[in-house]
Amino acid sequence: MSPIDPLSQRLAAERERVEEALERAVERLAQQLPADMLAAVRHGVLGGGKRLRPILCVSAYEACGGPPSPSVYDLAAALELIHAYSLMHDDLPCMDDADLRRGRPSTHREHGEDVTMRAGAALIPAAALQARSACAALGCSPARARAVTAALLEASGAGGMVGGQWADLLGEGRALGAEELEALHGRKTGALLAASLVMGALAAGAPDRVVAALGAYGRAIGLAFQIADDILDATQQAETLGKNPSDIALGKSTYVALFGLEGARERARVEAARAVEALRAVGLEAPTLVELADYVVARER
Amino acid sequence: MSPIDPLSQRLAAERERVEEALERAVERLAQQLPADMLAAVRHGVLGGGKRLRPILCVSAYEACGGPPSPSVYDLAAALELIHAYSLMHDDLPCMDDADLRRGRPSTHREHGEDVTMRAGAALIPAAALQARSACAALGCSPARARAVTAALLEASGAGGMVGGQWADLLGEGRALGAEELEALHGRKTGALLAASLVMGALAAGAPDRVVAALGAYGRAIGLAFQIADDILDATQQAETLGKNPSDIALGKSTYVALFGLEGARERARVEAARAVEALRAVGLEAPTLVELADYVVARER
Repeated sequence: MSPIDPLSQRLAAERERVEEALERAVERLAQQLPADMLAAVRHGVLGGGKRLRPILCVSAYEACGGPPSPSVYDLAAALELIHAYSLMHDDLPCMDDADLRRGRPSTHREHGEDVTMRAGAALIPAAALQARSACAALGCSPARARAVTAALLEASGAGGMVGGQWADLLGEGRALGAEELEALHGRKTGALLAASLVMGALAAGAPDRVVAALGAYGRAIGLAFQIADDILDATQQAETLGKNPSDIALGKSTYVALFGLEGARERARVEAARAVEALRAVGLEAPTLVELADYVVARER
Repeated sequence: MSPIDPLSQRLAAERERVEEALERAVERLAQQLPADMLAAVRHGVLGGGKRLRPILCVSAYEACGGPPSPSVYDLAAALELIHAYSLMHDDLPCMDDADLRRGRPSTHREHGEDVTMRAGAALIPAAALQARSACAALGCSPARARAVTAALLEASGAGGMVGGQWADLLGEGRALGAEELEALHGRKTGALLAASLVMGALAAGAPDRVVAALGAYGRAIGLAFQIADDILDATQQAETLGKNPSDIALGKSTYVALFGLEGARERARVEAARAVEALRAVGLEAPTLVELADYVVARER
């Protein structure tokens, strides 16, 4: 991303390249899936979204000096396949029972529970295979490619978002403390966001301490992102959000409930600053990542 | 497996080593999962079963001259994690809505739908990571290890069992032809069975034509296995099967419905013979695999 044009324009341009990579990914699955299951995958994967994880992955790759290549968008798209699976499953009746996602009916409302559950699960191996072939196309060493895929699998599994999502349900109806909330979101949102940056850095061949710094950046903006989500839920209508503000409706603990609106805003800013500091500490010049840390806190949906 | 003692004894001994490997796998997940989700994983993974896929994997590894190692059971256990995930999801209310599995309540009946869906999905990345570390412990080359994990991911995903399971639902209530039925089961059961043998052969360093022959063996006994399942559903009670004979209850197409009991038995025998022929064609001495082909057809549950 060139740092000359304003961030929003660059994000829109990046989003377009991510969409193209996602179209390619779905096209590959089209050769393997029955029509109805493919339709659910299309709905879940190509239904819009900020594409924050792929954009972070590409930004980390570029900040670490990875040579320009369309394949980095294929690598980045693997993250969005996992994110799409988690949203498809989250919205199911036995989970959040959400009718709305990104201003459209949730996947299971249009394609059925059974198909959505299957299609979501199918995205997990698809994402891992996609990351592997992208690494091969980028010319990553076998060891680097292994590390990239391991980062994706770990963030997608028991140690990552799945553990956190489950803890999310545990939290319904009872108040969590600040530490619990942080641990929960560290896994739910933070694991895949951190993996996005780590994967980009690994694929670019970054040294360990830079990879670690980008992981720390990712965990911090993951937390900032979640706090911003809580603030949006507390201050905006479903119309603007494109989803039901379900966290409040379900009585889940939120940062706003814990710290108040202004306290939550302050915590988000602190996390964003911590993210940027992690980059500075290893001397990484990454103006786009610095801007993205602010963007995550200031976003309006 | 030594070919001296009778097959049933050897299977029991192998099963025990597989159980130990599964215990190790669950133990690793115990460090990452919340207690309730771990309980669902325990229920789904350690709840008994024939452990056919792991045993086939180990048998292929040994037939291809892989040096004895406890790690081959860890590799084999990865297949059972995927199998367990598929059964946990299959039994859910939005799929088969099964109360009973292996003579016990199905996982979601004891641990809830939400937890079971999450725990099942968490087994997919866990299985891939488990296969990778087992390959490393076995000293596989990076290229071999990649091929082993790719075989597992492909069989677990859109091109394998997931596509087939979905087609399974499509088949409810309308009669499928023999070719459709074969295509369906080739994916539903055959993909993971074939991967079991392919993974064992790859890990042992077998040449391509032997790997391919073991894949063909796996697809053939996969079909024989499914036909035997249809025969068991048609002739036995839930008590003996340890599950509800749901395929008939749901009006699915079965081999017995298509070919009659005797016709189905004959087709199972033909597939078993085809499996054995695939091994002979490449000169692979594998007495245990030959016995297992018969076992799959003659099994009583």
